[in-house]
Amino acid sequence: MIMKSYRKELWFEVPTRRAFVNITRQVEACLRESGVQEGIVLVNAMHITASVFINDDESGLHQDYDRWLEALAPHEPVAQYLHNRTGEDNADAHMKRQIMGREVVVAITKGKLDFGPWEQIFYGSQPHLAPRAISQSGGQPRVPDIARQAFVEKS
Amino acid sequence: MIMKSYRKELWFEVPTRRAFVNITRQVEACLRESGVQEGIVLVNAMHITASVFINDDESGLHQDYDRWLEALAPHEPVAQYLHNRTGEDNADAHMKRQIMGREVVVAITKGKLDFGPWEQIFYGSQPHLAPRAISQSGGQPRVPDIARQAFVEKS
Amino acid sequence: MIMKSYRKELWFEVPTRRAFVNITRQVEACLRESGVQEGIVLVNAMHITASVFINDDESGLHQDYDRWLEALAPHEPVAQYLHNRTGEDNADAHMKRQIMGREVVVAITKGKLDFGPWEQIFYGSQPHLAPRAISQSGGQPRVPDIARQAFVEKS
Repeated sequence: MIMKSYRKELWFEVPTRRAFVNITRQVEACLRESGVQEGIVLVNAMHITASVFINDDESGLHQDYDRWLEALAPHEPVAQYLHNRTGEDNADAHMKRQIMGREVVVAITKGKLDFGPWEQIFYGSQPHLAPRAISQSGGQPRVPDIARQAFVEKS
Repeated sequence: MIMKSYRKELWFEVPTRRAFVNITRQVEACLRESGVQEGIVLVNAMHITASVFINDDESGLHQDYDRWLEALAPHEPVAQYLHNRTGEDNADAHMKRQIMGREVVVAITKGKLDFGPWEQIFYGSQPHLAPRAISQSGGQPRVPDIARQAFVEKS
Repeated sequence: MIMKSYRKELWFEVPTRRAFVNITRQVEACLRESGVQEGIVLVNAMHITASVFINDDESGLHQDYDRWLEALAPHEPVAQYLHNRTGEDNADAHMKRQIMGREVVVAITKGKLDFGPWEQIFYGSQPHLAPRAISQSGGQPRVPDIARQAFVEKS
Protein backbone atom coordinates (compact mmCIF):
# COMPACT_ATOMS: atom_id res chain seq x y z
CA MET A 1 0.00 0.00 0.00
CA ILE A 2 1.21 3.47 -0.86
CA MET A 3 -0.06 6.53 0.98
CA LYS A 4 0.33 9.90 -0.61
CA SER A 5 0.18 13.48 0.45
CA TYR A 6 1.07 16.01 -2.22
CA ARG A 7 1.32 19.80 -2.08
CA LYS A 8 1.88 22.41 -4.74
CA GLU A 9 1.67 26.17 -4.90
CA LEU A 10 0.48 28.06 -7.95
CA TRP A 11 2.01 31.50 -8.33
CA PHE A 12 0.63 33.94 -10.82
CA GLU A 13 0.11 37.59 -11.57
CA VAL A 14 -3.28 39.12 -12.20
CA PRO A 15 -3.11 42.35 -14.18
CA THR A 16 -6.54 43.74 -13.29
CA ARG A 17 -7.94 44.83 -9.92
CA ARG A 18 -10.34 41.89 -9.88
CA ALA A 19 -10.33 38.74 -11.98
CA PHE A 20 -11.68 35.20 -12.00
CA VAL A 21 -8.99 32.86 -13.30
CA ASN A 22 -9.88 29.32 -14.38
CA ILE A 23 -7.27 27.09 -12.72
CA THR A 24 -8.89 23.73 -13.46
CA ARG A 25 -6.22 22.66 -15.94
CA GLN A 26 -3.45 23.48 -13.44
CA VAL A 27 -5.16 21.53 -10.66
CA GLU A 28 -5.57 18.58 -13.04
CA ALA A 29 -1.87 18.76 -13.95
CA CYS A 30 -1.01 18.73 -10.24
CA LEU A 31 -3.29 15.76 -9.74
CA ARG A 32 -1.48 13.81 -12.47
CA GLU A 33 1.88 14.68 -10.90
CA SER A 34 0.65 13.45 -7.51
CA GLY A 35 -0.33 10.03 -8.85
CA VAL A 36 -3.41 10.12 -6.61
CA GLN A 37 -6.19 7.78 -7.77
CA GLU A 38 -8.79 7.93 -4.98
CA GLY A 39 -9.00 10.67 -2.39
CA ILE A 40 -9.61 14.36 -2.06
CA VAL A 41 -7.89 17.57 -3.04
CA LEU A 42 -8.02 20.81 -1.11
CA VAL A 43 -7.53 23.97 -3.18
CA ASN A 44 -7.34 27.18 -1.20
CA ALA A 45 -6.33 30.79 -1.57
CA MET A 46 -3.45 31.97 0.61
CA HIS A 47 -4.58 35.59 0.57
CA ILE A 48 -7.38 36.61 2.88
CA THR A 49 -9.05 38.72 0.20
CA ALA A 50 -8.86 36.06 -2.51
CA SER A 51 -11.24 33.19 -3.22
CA VAL A 52 -11.28 29.72 -4.66
CA PHE A 53 -14.68 28.55 -5.85
CA ILE A 54 -16.36 26.20 -8.29
CA ASN A 55 -18.80 27.43 -10.88
CA ASP A 56 -19.35 27.89 -14.60
CA ASP A 57 -16.76 29.28 -17.03
CA GLU A 58 -19.05 31.78 -18.71
CA SER A 59 -17.86 35.38 -19.08
CA GLY A 60 -21.32 36.91 -18.66
CA LEU A 61 -21.73 35.08 -15.37
CA HIS A 62 -18.39 36.37 -14.15
CA GLN A 63 -19.42 39.93 -14.93
CA ASP A 64 -22.67 39.25 -13.07
CA TYR A 65 -20.68 38.06 -10.06
CA ASP A 66 -18.51 41.13 -10.17
CA ARG A 67 -21.47 43.51 -10.26
CA TRP A 68 -23.40 41.57 -7.64
CA LEU A 69 -20.46 41.49 -5.21
CA GLU A 70 -19.95 45.22 -5.71
CA ALA A 71 -23.61 45.82 -4.83
CA LEU A 72 -23.39 43.66 -1.69
CA ALA A 73 -20.08 45.16 -0.49
CA PRO A 74 -19.26 48.40 -2.36
CA HIS A 75 -15.65 49.50 -2.63
CA GLU A 76 -16.64 53.18 -2.36
CA PRO A 77 -16.77 55.16 -0.20
CA VAL A 78 -13.56 53.68 1.17
CA ALA A 79 -14.07 55.48 4.49
CA GLN A 80 -17.23 53.49 5.27
CA TYR A 81 -15.01 50.62 6.49
CA LEU A 82 -13.03 50.84 9.72
CA HIS A 83 -10.48 48.40 8.30
CA ASN A 84 -9.42 51.00 5.75
CA ARG A 85 -8.12 53.21 8.59
CA THR A 86 -5.12 50.86 8.63
CA GLY A 87 -4.02 52.49 5.37
CA GLU A 88 -5.44 49.77 3.14
CA ASP A 89 -8.43 50.31 0.88
CA ASN A 90 -9.55 46.73 0.42
CA ALA A 91 -12.02 46.16 3.28
CA ASP A 92 -14.71 45.45 0.70
CA ALA A 93 -12.56 42.63 -0.70
CA HIS A 94 -12.58 40.95 2.74
CA MET A 95 -16.40 40.98 2.62
CA LYS A 96 -16.58 39.69 -0.95
CA ARG A 97 -14.21 36.85 -0.13
CA GLN A 98 -16.62 35.55 2.56
CA ILE A 99 -19.31 35.19 -0.09
CA MET A 100 -17.10 33.53 -2.70
CA GLY A 101 -15.22 31.30 -0.24
CA ARG A 102 -11.60 30.54 0.63
CA GLU A 103 -11.36 26.93 -0.47
CA VAL A 104 -12.88 23.97 -2.23
CA VAL A 105 -12.55 20.28 -1.46
CA VAL A 106 -12.97 18.01 -4.46
CA ALA A 107 -13.24 14.25 -4.60
CA ILE A 108 -10.76 12.35 -6.78
CA THR A 109 -12.08 9.22 -8.47
CA LYS A 110 -9.97 7.03 -10.76
CA GLY A 111 -7.35 9.75 -10.95
CA LYS A 112 -9.79 12.48 -12.08
CA LEU A 113 -11.53 15.42 -10.38
CA ASP A 114 -14.97 13.98 -9.63
CA PHE A 115 -16.94 16.80 -11.23
CA GLY A 116 -20.39 17.42 -12.59
CA PRO A 117 -20.60 18.50 -16.24
CA TRP A 118 -20.05 22.25 -15.76
CA GLU A 119 -17.85 22.40 -12.67
CA GLN A 120 -14.66 24.43 -13.06
CA ILE A 121 -12.32 25.77 -10.36
CA PHE A 122 -11.67 29.51 -10.23
CA TYR A 123 -9.27 31.71 -8.40
CA GLY A 124 -10.94 35.01 -7.54
CA SER A 125 -8.26 37.64 -7.27
CA GLN A 126 -8.86 40.86 -5.40
CA PRO A 127 -6.54 43.62 -4.23
CA HIS A 128 -4.50 42.11 -1.43
CA LEU A 129 -1.77 44.62 -0.81
CA ALA A 130 -2.00 48.31 -0.10
CA PRO A 131 -0.86 50.57 -2.94
CA ARG A 132 2.06 51.49 -0.71
CA ALA A 133 3.22 47.91 -0.47
CA ILE A 134 2.85 47.43 -4.19
CA SER A 135 4.93 50.48 -5.03
CA GLN A 136 7.58 49.45 -2.50
CA SER A 137 8.07 46.22 -4.36
CA GLY A 138 8.58 48.16 -7.57
CA GLY A 139 5.49 46.97 -9.37
CA GLN A 140 3.01 44.12 -9.16
CA PRO A 141 4.41 41.77 -6.52
CA ARG A 142 4.68 38.05 -7.08
CA VAL A 143 2.89 36.29 -4.26
CA PRO A 144 1.93 32.69 -3.68
CA ASP A 145 -1.65 32.50 -4.79
CA ILE A 146 -2.76 28.92 -4.29
CA ALA A 147 -1.83 26.06 -2.06
CA ARG A 148 -3.21 22.71 -2.94
CA GLN A 149 -3.05 19.57 -0.95
CA ALA A 150 -3.96 16.17 -2.31
CA PHE A 151 -4.52 13.51 0.30
CA VAL A 152 -5.22 10.00 -0.75
CA GLU A 153 -5.47 6.30 -0.27
CA LYS A 154 -4.20 3.93 -2.90
CA SER A 155 -4.29 0.20 -2.41
CA MET B 1 -4.84 -1.97 8.83
CA ILE B 2 -7.59 -1.29 6.32
CA MET B 3 -7.74 1.97 4.37
CA LYS B 4 -10.99 2.97 2.79
CA SER B 5 -12.21 5.40 0.20
CA TYR B 6 -15.88 5.20 -0.61
CA ARG B 7 -17.98 7.10 -3.13
CA LYS B 8 -21.69 7.21 -3.78
CA GLU B 9 -24.03 9.35 -5.85
CA LEU B 10 -27.51 10.30 -4.78
CA TRP B 11 -29.93 10.85 -7.62
CA PHE B 12 -33.29 12.42 -7.02
CA GLU B 13 -35.99 14.56 -8.53
CA VAL B 14 -37.19 17.81 -7.03
CA PRO B 15 -40.69 18.74 -8.15
CA THR B 16 -40.54 22.45 -7.27
CA ARG B 17 -38.37 25.24 -8.69
CA ARG B 18 -36.49 25.51 -5.42
CA ALA B 19 -36.35 23.11 -2.49
CA PHE B 20 -34.24 22.22 0.53
CA VAL B 21 -34.09 18.43 0.88
CA ASN B 22 -32.86 16.85 4.10
CA ILE B 23 -30.37 14.17 3.01
CA THR B 24 -28.91 13.36 6.44
CA ARG B 25 -30.48 9.89 6.58
CA GLN B 26 -29.09 9.04 3.14
CA VAL B 27 -25.60 10.21 4.05
CA GLU B 28 -25.79 8.14 7.25
CA ALA B 29 -26.84 5.09 5.26
CA CYS B 30 -23.88 5.62 2.93
CA LEU B 31 -21.60 5.95 5.93
CA ARG B 32 -22.79 2.60 7.27
CA GLU B 33 -22.21 0.99 3.87
CA SER B 34 -18.68 2.38 3.78
CA GLY B 35 -17.73 0.85 7.12
CA VAL B 36 -15.78 4.01 7.93
CA GLN B 37 -15.22 4.51 11.67
CA GLU B 38 -12.87 7.52 11.87
CA GLY B 39 -12.34 10.03 9.09
CA ILE B 40 -14.17 12.60 7.06
CA VAL B 41 -16.94 12.69 4.52
CA LEU B 42 -17.25 15.19 1.69
CA VAL B 43 -20.79 15.84 0.47
CA ASN B 44 -21.06 18.09 -2.56
CA ALA B 45 -23.52 19.14 -5.21
CA MET B 46 -22.61 18.28 -8.80
CA HIS B 47 -24.70 21.09 -10.27
CA ILE B 48 -23.24 24.56 -10.22
CA THR B 49 -26.53 26.12 -9.16
CA ALA B 50 -27.20 23.64 -6.35
CA SER B 51 -25.98 23.70 -2.76
CA VAL B 52 -25.12 21.36 0.05
CA PHE B 53 -25.19 22.95 3.49
CA ILE B 54 -25.70 22.16 7.16
CA ASN B 55 -28.36 23.87 9.19
CA ASP B 56 -31.63 23.33 11.05
CA ASP B 57 -34.56 21.27 9.75
CA GLU B 58 -37.24 23.85 10.48
CA SER B 59 -39.69 24.75 7.73
CA GLY B 60 -40.04 28.40 8.80
CA LEU B 61 -36.27 28.80 8.57
CA HIS B 62 -36.24 27.32 5.09
CA GLN B 63 -38.88 29.80 3.95
CA ASP B 64 -36.78 32.54 5.52
CA TYR B 65 -33.74 31.36 3.54
CA ASP B 66 -35.76 31.32 0.36
CA ARG B 67 -37.05 34.86 0.85
CA TRP B 68 -33.66 36.16 1.98
CA LEU B 69 -31.83 34.67 -1.01
CA GLU B 70 -34.44 36.12 -3.34
CA ALA B 71 -33.84 39.56 -1.82
CA LEU B 72 -30.05 39.26 -2.18
CA ALA B 73 -30.16 37.92 -5.75
CA PRO B 74 -33.60 38.42 -7.33
CA HIS B 75 -34.68 36.14 -10.15
CA GLU B 76 -36.55 38.98 -11.89
CA PRO B 77 -35.93 40.87 -14.05
CA VAL B 78 -34.16 38.03 -15.84
CA ALA B 79 -32.50 40.51 -18.22
CA GLN B 80 -30.50 42.14 -15.38
CA TYR B 81 -27.99 39.26 -15.64
CA LEU B 82 -25.61 38.92 -18.58
CA HIS B 83 -25.49 35.16 -18.02
CA ASN B 84 -29.14 34.90 -19.04
CA ARG B 85 -28.19 36.03 -22.56
CA THR B 86 -26.98 32.46 -23.07
CA GLY B 87 -30.63 31.40 -23.17
CA GLU B 88 -30.78 30.31 -19.55
CA ASP B 89 -32.75 32.17 -16.90
CA ASN B 90 -30.98 30.93 -13.80
CA ALA B 91 -28.18 33.47 -13.27
CA ASP B 92 -29.69 34.33 -9.89
CA ALA B 93 -29.32 30.67 -8.88
CA HIS B 94 -25.55 30.91 -9.50
CA MET B 95 -25.43 33.84 -7.05
CA LYS B 96 -27.57 32.09 -4.43
CA ARG B 97 -25.39 29.00 -4.61
CA GLN B 98 -22.31 31.04 -3.59
CA ILE B 99 -24.07 32.04 -0.37
CA MET B 100 -25.38 28.58 0.49
CA GLY B 101 -22.20 26.73 -0.55
CA ARG B 102 -21.28 23.81 -2.78
CA GLU B 103 -20.09 21.30 -0.22
CA VAL B 104 -19.70 20.27 3.39
CA VAL B 105 -16.94 18.28 5.04
CA VAL B 106 -18.05 16.39 8.13
CA ALA B 107 -15.95 14.51 10.67
CA ILE B 108 -16.77 10.85 11.30
CA THR B 109 -16.24 9.61 14.85
CA LYS B 110 -16.96 6.03 15.94
CA GLY B 111 -18.85 5.43 12.73
CA LYS B 112 -21.21 8.41 13.15
CA LEU B 113 -21.42 11.91 11.66
CA ASP B 114 -19.77 14.04 14.35
CA PHE B 115 -22.60 16.56 14.64
CA GLY B 116 -23.87 19.12 17.11
CA PRO B 117 -27.44 18.67 18.35
CA TRP B 118 -29.24 20.41 15.49
CA GLU B 119 -26.97 19.83 12.51
CA GLN B 120 -28.65 18.33 9.45
CA ILE B 121 -27.38 18.12 5.87
CA PHE B 122 -29.48 19.70 3.12
CA TYR B 123 -29.41 19.65 -0.63
CA GLY B 124 -30.54 23.00 -1.97
CA SER B 125 -32.00 22.46 -5.40
CA GLN B 126 -32.32 25.28 -7.87
CA PRO B 127 -33.11 25.38 -11.58
CA HIS B 128 -30.10 23.90 -13.33
CA LEU B 129 -31.25 23.31 -16.84
CA ALA B 130 -32.81 25.73 -19.28
CA PRO B 131 -36.51 25.20 -19.97
CA ARG B 132 -35.48 24.12 -23.46
CA ALA B 133 -33.32 21.30 -22.14
CA ILE B 134 -36.05 20.21 -19.79
CA SER B 135 -38.66 20.04 -22.52
CA GLN B 136 -36.27 18.18 -24.81
CA SER B 137 -35.93 15.45 -22.25
CA GLY B 138 -39.70 15.17 -22.13
CA GLY B 139 -40.17 16.34 -18.58
CA GLN B 140 -38.12 16.76 -15.45
CA PRO B 141 -34.74 15.20 -16.22
CA ARG B 142 -33.03 12.80 -13.86
CA VAL B 143 -29.59 14.15 -13.08
CA PRO B 144 -26.92 13.12 -10.61
CA ASP B 145 -27.43 15.43 -7.67
CA ILE B 146 -24.88 14.49 -5.05
CA ALA B 147 -21.47 12.95 -4.95
CA ARG B 148 -20.16 11.94 -1.61
CA GLN B 149 -16.73 10.74 -0.74
CA ALA B 150 -15.80 9.14 2.55
CA PHE B 151 -12.11 8.95 3.25
CA VAL B 152 -10.86 7.23 6.32
CA GLU B 153 -8.30 5.53 8.47
CA LYS B 154 -9.17 2.40 10.41
CA SER B 155 -6.60 0.61 12.51
CA MET C 1 3.85 3.62 8.81
CA ILE C 2 1.58 5.30 11.32
CA MET C 3 -1.86 6.56 10.36
CA LYS C 4 -3.54 9.11 12.55
CA SER C 5 -6.97 10.51 13.07
CA TYR C 6 -7.29 12.97 15.91
CA ARG C 7 -10.33 14.79 17.29
CA LYS C 8 -10.69 17.49 19.89
CA GLU C 9 -13.48 19.79 21.05
CA LEU C 10 -12.94 23.35 22.15
CA TRP C 11 -15.44 24.58 24.72
CA PHE C 12 -15.66 28.21 25.62
CA GLU C 13 -17.95 30.97 26.76
CA VAL C 14 -18.54 34.14 24.81
CA PRO C 15 -19.79 37.00 26.99
CA THR C 16 -21.24 39.19 24.21
CA ARG C 17 -24.13 38.57 21.84
CA ARG C 18 -21.76 38.32 18.91
CA ALA C 19 -17.99 37.87 18.87
CA PHE C 20 -15.16 36.74 16.61
CA VAL C 21 -12.69 34.69 18.65
CA ASN C 22 -9.22 33.96 17.28
CA ILE C 23 -8.70 30.22 17.85
CA THR C 24 -5.54 29.78 15.77
CA ARG C 25 -3.30 29.16 18.80
CA GLN C 26 -5.69 26.50 20.10
CA VAL C 27 -5.83 24.73 16.74
CA GLU C 28 -2.02 24.81 16.57
CA ALA C 29 -1.81 23.32 20.07
CA CYS C 30 -4.19 20.56 18.98
CA LEU C 31 -2.09 19.96 15.90
CA ARG C 32 1.03 19.50 18.03
CA GLU C 33 -0.84 17.06 20.30
CA SER C 34 -1.92 15.05 17.27
CA GLY C 35 1.61 14.60 15.98
CA VAL C 36 0.31 15.06 12.44
CA GLN C 37 3.01 16.13 9.96
CA GLU C 38 1.29 16.00 6.56
CA GLY C 39 -2.45 16.06 6.06
CA ILE C 40 -5.48 18.21 6.63
CA VAL C 41 -7.43 19.54 9.57
CA LEU C 42 -11.15 20.20 9.60
CA VAL C 43 -12.31 22.89 12.03
CA ASN C 44 -16.06 23.31 12.28
CA ALA C 45 -18.68 24.91 14.48
CA MET C 46 -21.15 22.55 16.14
CA HIS C 47 -23.85 25.21 16.47
CA ILE C 48 -25.91 25.98 13.42
CA THR C 49 -25.75 29.72 14.04
CA ALA C 50 -21.98 29.81 14.62
CA SER C 51 -19.19 30.08 12.08
CA VAL C 52 -15.59 29.09 11.60
CA PHE C 53 -13.73 31.15 9.02
CA ILE C 54 -10.26 32.32 8.06
CA ASN C 55 -9.43 35.97 7.73
CA ASP C 56 -7.40 38.82 9.23
CA ASP C 57 -7.10 39.52 12.97
CA GLU C 58 -7.85 43.24 12.75
CA SER C 59 -10.45 44.73 15.07
CA GLY C 60 -11.68 47.31 12.57
CA LEU C 61 -12.33 44.58 10.04
CA HIS C 62 -14.30 42.57 12.60
CA GLN C 63 -16.50 45.59 13.31
CA ASP C 64 -16.96 45.97 9.55
CA TYR C 65 -18.05 42.33 9.32
CA ASP C 66 -20.49 42.82 12.15
CA ARG C 67 -22.07 45.88 10.58
CA TRP C 68 -22.12 44.35 7.11
CA LEU C 69 -23.78 41.13 8.29
CA GLU C 70 -26.37 43.16 10.18
CA ALA C 71 -27.16 45.08 6.98
CA LEU C 72 -27.49 41.87 4.93
CA ALA C 73 -29.62 40.04 7.53
CA PRO C 74 -30.98 42.44 10.16
CA HIS C 75 -31.89 41.12 13.59
CA GLU C 76 -34.84 43.53 13.88
CA PRO C 77 -37.71 43.36 13.39
CA VAL C 78 -37.63 39.86 14.84
CA ALA C 79 -41.11 39.14 13.44
CA GLN C 80 -39.86 39.40 9.83
CA TYR C 81 -38.56 35.82 10.10
CA LEU C 82 -40.89 32.82 10.22
CA HIS C 83 -38.26 30.89 12.16
CA ASN C 84 -38.73 33.22 15.12
CA ARG C 85 -42.30 31.94 15.52
CA THR C 86 -40.72 28.90 17.16
CA GLY C 87 -39.96 31.12 20.16
CA GLU C 88 -36.37 31.83 19.18
CA ASP C 89 -35.18 35.23 18.03
CA ASN C 90 -32.04 34.23 16.16
CA ALA C 91 -33.25 33.60 12.60
CA ASP C 92 -30.91 36.36 11.41
CA ALA C 93 -27.99 34.43 12.90
CA HIS C 94 -28.86 31.45 10.67
CA MET C 95 -28.57 33.75 7.64
CA LYS C 96 -25.30 35.31 8.80
CA ARG C 97 -23.79 31.89 9.37
CA GLN C 98 -24.32 30.96 5.71
CA ILE C 99 -22.20 33.93 4.68
CA MET C 100 -19.41 33.35 7.18
CA GLY C 101 -19.37 29.54 6.77
CA ARG C 102 -19.55 26.51 9.06
CA GLU C 103 -16.08 25.08 8.58
CA VAL C 104 -12.59 25.41 7.22
CA VAL C 105 -10.25 22.75 5.90
CA VAL C 106 -6.58 23.60 6.26
CA ALA C 107 -3.56 21.80 4.85
CA ILE C 108 -0.87 20.66 7.29
CA THR C 109 2.70 20.74 5.99
CA LYS C 110 5.71 19.72 8.08
CA GLY C 111 3.59 19.80 11.21
CA LYS C 112 2.31 23.38 10.67
CA LEU C 113 -0.91 24.95 9.42
CA ASP C 114 -0.07 25.71 5.78
CA PHE C 115 -1.11 29.35 5.89
CA GLY C 116 -0.52 32.53 3.95
CA PRO C 117 0.97 35.44 5.91
CA TRP C 118 -2.28 36.86 7.37
CA GLU C 119 -4.47 33.79 7.70
CA GLN C 120 -5.98 33.27 11.15
CA ILE C 121 -8.86 31.01 12.19
CA PHE C 122 -11.88 32.57 13.89
CA TYR C 123 -14.89 31.25 15.68
CA GLY C 124 -17.86 33.49 15.00
CA SER C 125 -20.24 33.21 17.91
CA GLN C 126 -23.86 34.17 17.59
CA PRO C 127 -26.88 33.63 19.81
CA HIS C 128 -27.66 29.95 19.63
CA LEU C 129 -30.11 29.44 22.40
CA ALA C 130 -33.35 31.27 23.06
CA PRO C 131 -33.30 33.61 26.08
CA ARG C 132 -35.66 31.16 27.73
CA ALA C 133 -33.19 28.30 27.46
CA ILE C 134 -30.39 30.49 28.74
CA SER C 135 -32.33 31.58 31.78
CA GLN C 136 -33.40 28.00 32.48
CA SER C 137 -29.78 26.98 32.70
CA GLY C 138 -29.20 29.76 35.21
CA GLY C 139 -26.85 31.84 33.10
CA GLN C 140 -24.69 31.51 30.04
CA PRO C 141 -24.65 27.80 29.21
CA ARG C 142 -21.45 25.93 28.48
CA VAL C 143 -21.79 24.27 25.12
CA PRO C 144 -19.36 22.44 22.88
CA ASP C 145 -18.27 25.06 20.40
CA ILE C 146 -15.75 23.46 18.10
CA ALA C 147 -14.98 20.03 16.81
CA ARG C 148 -11.76 19.54 15.00
CA GLN C 149 -10.59 16.53 13.15
CA ALA C 150 -7.08 16.04 11.92
CA PHE C 151 -6.67 13.30 9.34
CA VAL C 152 -3.24 12.44 8.12
CA GLU C 153 -0.66 10.27 6.48
CA LYS C 154 2.78 9.89 8.00
CA SER C 155 5.39 7.63 6.47
